Amino acid sequence: MRIVVLAGGIGGARFLRGLKAAAPDADITVIGNTGDDIHLFGLKVCPDLDTVMYTLGGGINEEQGWGRADETFRVKEELAAYGVGPEWFGLGDRDFATHIVRTQMLAAGFPLSAVTEALCARWQPGVRLLPMSDDRIETHVAIEEDGEQRAVHFQEYWVRLRASVDARAVVPVGAEQAKPAPGVLEALGDADVILFPPSNPVVSVGTILAVPGIREAIADAGVPVIGLSPIVGDAPVRGMADKVLAAVGVESTAAAVARHYGSGLLDGWLVDSVDAGAVAEVEAAGIRCRAVPLMMTDLDATAAMAREALTLAEEVRA
Amino acid sequence: MRIVVLAGGIGGARFLRGLKAAAPDADITVIGNTGDDIHLFGLKVCPDLDTVMYTLGGGINEEQGWGRADETFRVKEELAAYGVGPEWFGLGDRDFATHIVRTQMLAAGFPLSAVTEALCARWQPGVRLLPMSDDRIETHVAIEEDGEQRAVHFQEYWVRLRASVDARAVVPVGAEQAKPAPGVLEALGDADVILFPPSNPVVSVGTILAVPGIREAIADAGVPVIGLSPIVGDAPVRGMADKVLAAVGVESTAAAVARHYGSGLLDGWLVDSVDAGAVAEVEAAGIRCRAVPLMMTDLDATAAMAREALTLAEEVRA
Repeated sequence: MRIVVLAGGIGGARFLRGLKAAAPDADITVIGNTGDDIHLFGLKVCPDLDTVMYTLGGGINEEQGWGRADETFRVKEELAAYGVGPEWFGLGDRDFATHIVRTQMLAAGFPLSAVTEALCARWQPGVRLLPMSDDRIETHVAIEEDGEQRAVHFQEYWVRLRASVDARAVVPVGAEQAKPAPGVLEALGDADVILFPPSNPVVSVGTILAVPGIREAIADAGVPVIGLSPIVGDAPVRGMADKVLAAVGVESTAAAVARHYGSGLLDGWLVDSVDAGAVAEVEAAGIRCRAVPLMMTDLDATAAMAREALTLAEEVRA
Repeated sequence: MRIVVLAGGIGGARFLRGLKAAAPDADITVIGNTGDDIHLFGLKVCPDLDTVMYTLGGGINEEQGWGRADETFRVKEELAAYGVGPEWFGLGDRDFATHIVRTQMLAAGFPLSAVTEALCARWQPGVRLLPMSDDRIETHVAIEEDGEQRAVHFQEYWVRLRASVDARAVVPVGAEQAKPAPGVLEALGDADVILFPPSNPVVSVGTILAVPGIREAIADAGVPVIGLSPIVGDAPVRGMADKVLAAVGVESTAAAVARHYGSGLLDGWLVDSVDAGAVAEVEAAGIRCRAVPLMMTDLDATAAMAREALTLAEEVRA
């Protein structure tokens, strides 16, 4: 079975671990979000790709969900001693090495997809990890801070500001001119099932869908497309998805997110058991819906979610 | 008193510490060798400038004489885990930060001299540290390895090969087209005394002299030019200077190095007490010479050497 997953960072990575356990023989291709990539200290940092790679490759800091286990911050401390920031972005020493290798390969002319493959040769994540695009795309967030309108990099909004101010707009800068990375459209065309994990629908999955050709390839794939709600009981399971959902005029409810994706894209939608009341509303929108436990508390619970998604895919197919 | 010092790495840096103690009120400008600069992992590394900066700024690893104190090697270990080398060059985590800041500033368009000034704003070395040139110069060494002639970067010769094979030639690639960095010629023109510390006469001081205009500015300065022998008892005090001296046809003796610089450049030369027999030979070459203890065993001994150099400068001037 060939499964394609559109993944953001922590939520996507944890779901993928469950999916691998639920479908150990499946051929899994991950289309990773690169909209939150950022250049820091002259280095190209790809937080979502790395979170997937480290999580599936056994290098992740399990408690925080991002960055390397057993991490130190000597380089960052020294940069701060030189007055060089930003200090709000927590790049650890082990993590730095990944960005140094990536930056060096990009400077040598390799596209991000080739660089990602080279990094994964070390981590052996057990999936094929593709960036959504080799082109530079950066999600910017329009905010009002101290009475002034300005646009900040998504990482600045998310990490420095902790999404504490309203997002007026979320713009994946560069997406319109971008092309899907080599292999992305082919993987979608060959897929038996396409999954949207409980990742952020705006700044993770939404950014991937903003790359011209990807949304169409999903809609045209003719295979079940199943999503899992990142909203449980009217609140994001983790992160601050409600802030960016508001920016695109979507309520923070499991049903509203399903309608946001729409029946043109989505065939099936899993909501949490506490949102069972939303099933009828989602189905009325033309999307098959089931209410099941959606908290990724451990690997077993996450594998069960993945199995539910694959079961719903079979129902849709039948 | 305005003192200009042509400095390589460890020997130059340690001598400078003694000079600062011997002449606390002097205005000291250091013209630093950049011929052993190297690009590693996409970063610009300036070993000699950093050794001077760390040594005088209190950040040096005292035992090894280069690199940062209390250093760790997480980044390097991770790079090795990606299969990215070279492993023979010991870049520590703290040290990495310096190279990251430097590389970022260079990429932003600042010349190396401005970058060096910015880095020194943190370290406060108590001297004005100028790179010999803002232009790229790289010392390459022609060797025969496994029966094949090839040229290697000086660092590869010195660090990877430990100078274990003969150097056929030493070439400061790029020097001919280089210009002295801003401030270099002015400092030489304004100097009251010019010192050559016991640095390597070929790959440290020699490379600085290879930048067009510097040798002439020293010869034309009309002030005492005093050197200290890096050879004591027919052997280098540290390092493997004999290997590269042979490449330029110079014997590893205190007198031969003085003759190599020549009376057109050098007014005075200090040899170690064990080389007192060489004094007459050096003076016969038109260079005033004294035999004094030249082992930089501690700060007091090094300060005494600096005082001897300044005393000899006064003798020459008189």
